[in-house]
Amino acid sequence: MTRSFYPPQRTLMGPGPSDVSPRVLEALARPTIGHLDPLFIELMDSIKTLLQYVFKTQNALTLPISAPGSAGMETCFVNLVEPGDTVVICQNGVFGGRMRENVVRAGGIAIMVEDEWGRAVSPEKLEEALRNNPETSIVAFVHAETSTGAQSDAKTLCAIAKQFDCLTIVDTVTSLGGSMLEIDNWQIDAAYSGTQKCLSCVPGISPITLSTAAIDKIKNRKTQVQSWFLDLELIMGYWIGGGKRAYHHTAPVNAMYALHESLVLVKEEGLENAWNRHYQNHLTLKAGLDAIGLDLIVPENERLAQLNAVKIPDGVNDLAVRQQLLADYSLEIGAGLGSLAGKVWRIGLMGHASRKENILLCLAALESTLKHQGATIGSGGVEAAMAHLRAR
Amino acid sequence: MTRSFYPPQRTLMGPGPSDVSPRVLEALARPTIGHLDPLFIELMDSIKTLLQYVFKTQNALTLPISAPGSAGMETCFVNLVEPGDTVVICQNGVFGGRMRENVVRAGGIAIMVEDEWGRAVSPEKLEEALRNNPETSIVAFVHAETSTGAQSDAKTLCAIAKQFDCLTIVDTVTSLGGSMLEIDNWQIDAAYSGTQKCLSCVPGISPITLSTAAIDKIKNRKTQVQSWFLDLELIMGYWIGGGKRAYHHTAPVNAMYALHESLVLVKEEGLENAWNRHYQNHLTLKAGLDAIGLDLIVPENERLAQLNAVKIPDGVNDLAVRQQLLADYSLEIGAGLGSLAGKVWRIGLMGHASRKENILLCLAALESTLKHQGATIGSGGVEAAMAHLRAR
Repeated sequence: MTRSFYPPQRTLMGPGPSDVSPRVLEALARPTIGHLDPLFIELMDSIKTLLQYVFKTQNALTLPISAPGSAGMETCFVNLVEPGDTVVICQNGVFGGRMRENVVRAGGIAIMVEDEWGRAVSPEKLEEALRNNPETSIVAFVHAETSTGAQSDAKTLCAIAKQFDCLTIVDTVTSLGGSMLEIDNWQIDAAYSGTQKCLSCVPGISPITLSTAAIDKIKNRKTQVQSWFLDLELIMGYWIGGGKRAYHHTAPVNAMYALHESLVLVKEEGLENAWNRHYQNHLTLKAGLDAIGLDLIVPENERLAQLNAVKIPDGVNDLAVRQQLLADYSLEIGAGLGSLAGKVWRIGLMGHASRKENILLCLAALESTLKHQGATIGSGGVEAAMAHLRAR
Repeated sequence: MTRSFYPPQRTLMGPGPSDVSPRVLEALARPTIGHLDPLFIELMDSIKTLLQYVFKTQNALTLPISAPGSAGMETCFVNLVEPGDTVVICQNGVFGGRMRENVVRAGGIAIMVEDEWGRAVSPEKLEEALRNNPETSIVAFVHAETSTGAQSDAKTLCAIAKQFDCLTIVDTVTSLGGSMLEIDNWQIDAAYSGTQKCLSCVPGISPITLSTAAIDKIKNRKTQVQSWFLDLELIMGYWIGGGKRAYHHTAPVNAMYALHESLVLVKEEGLENAWNRHYQNHLTLKAGLDAIGLDLIVPENERLAQLNAVKIPDGVNDLAVRQQLLADYSLEIGAGLGSLAGKVWRIGLMGHASRKENILLCLAALESTLKHQGATIGSGGVEAAMAHLRAR
């Protein structure tokens, strides 16, 4: 293909990227300026302030890493984990496993605390693990497991970690902007997220925030951070501190326009209003899914609003359904990952995708497609959702 | 700033980001699709093919890293350098020093071969270093030093490295698309570049290419690659090989639209034509600088066409000139880096910025601004450039 590429207009209701706000796409294409331009430095400061707002933190070290969420994860681990450090990782899905990879590659010792996929992390198991492993200095877990749709009680988990004098690293990729998250109040020392989930932004950037305790740990490292690109002391030289900024790497300038616009959108809506919108739209989707007879795999009080893992009915061909949704409706929903592959669909209601129109399209498309594929399911998903909407 | 950010229209003639093609900006804002969408997989294949074209390589492992050039550099080093490996690095500017950082953090032993900043790397010194250090397994150098405007003879340097059975890692950030570069013919085993220089694209992505010999070295590693995000065996699972692509990270989808469009532009122009355009425009700029009396610091046969390091006349205030160019002409030129800070300006003629209009603007703006700042310089830069253009 040596001609220009014109993508179709999709409706993105998978695990991310999710629908991007038209305002964000428009901002993305504004004229590029230099990464050391005084006006770009002002934009950087504004991005930091807005990220503090959405993270609910006063942390000075709050900034976007110039790469996707996986790089944000790696930033937290390679800076905070030194060779020989013991890290307790609570795993209840795919991304806890990736945390383990990061700890091991940083020379740390990973102690895994396993929970069933589709369930929240168990505070009791964490407490037991910390009691049995007093040398532990860091606790890590995923707040909103994108692979299962389960939400863990980050506040309680961090409080336990603090009883054992541990730093906390929390994956907030799918929670930031989509459900309650309070970095400072919950005692989270390091968190990373992504732009392509509940922020309505394009994929490619990873907001992070680190507490003063986390910075102290970095400043007192006995070994050099193994990554030059992700070394926070170097990145801080560019992102933090007065008028003089030291060149580290060339920032993805246009992606920063997009991130800034997406944060302005959250600020305009109000963070708590955004959380509530995600929750209400989840209930509306749930009403429709109930009517069709599709079940969520996560127990009610552990469910994420923004990522709904739906059990695939017996005998239904996972891939055929997803392909038909894409072909007939230009609608993308997500497949299962890891041990849930072929067993669930993941329906995202994230950011700009968390809208009434999307819910109704998804319910109508799913119901019709499942029937076309010969599945025995119920009817009236759209009507049930509409009834729920009218009653809101 | 909680309002939308509207950047000014700059003319970007620094060391990058350089002017972005309007077609690339337009492509950037096209609707986001999923990173596993069948159409996105097709786009990925097309990007790989076009990158093979601009790199002049048959390497199967030719793909864009989802992060800036510094991450492309780190990808090459953390995958190819194992703890204890000896790497000879030829340094003639800032970026050779960054290579050293990468080698050391990967546990390798860096042997530095120093050349004067502003000069090409010396083949004789490299040969001597390899004779004195027979345990060396990798040679690394910068093809086009963005910090000084010097171009090294990559073909000769790689041939020497091959005599000593070494792999070669070459920084082609500023050369790709802007001056002659032949990965296969020159025996380059690993190269990385950036999108924001001679490709007329936005910053944020790093094209890389690795030879089969480089892949063999990776496959025979005794230790795990220290970075999960930059582990090429994992990245290959997503970017290379048939219909089945394994999820690794969420690709920056819109940035890939932009990269693709920028590569289509090079293909339309013809790679050799693009090299020649950069060279001819360099000569035109040079004719104008000669008239004003501004000197380039790099000897003629070692000069980069796309990055011109101009000696700042004695007594002239570096920062004041650059600030006035920005304020009065919305024109950005680059400051000196490292030991050249305050001593040179770096005038980029890269990609979409390598145009007649930019040369004339830059000459007129520089001449007028320098006179306003009280410098004693010549006149007629624009006329000399126009005369050169008419004679072309």
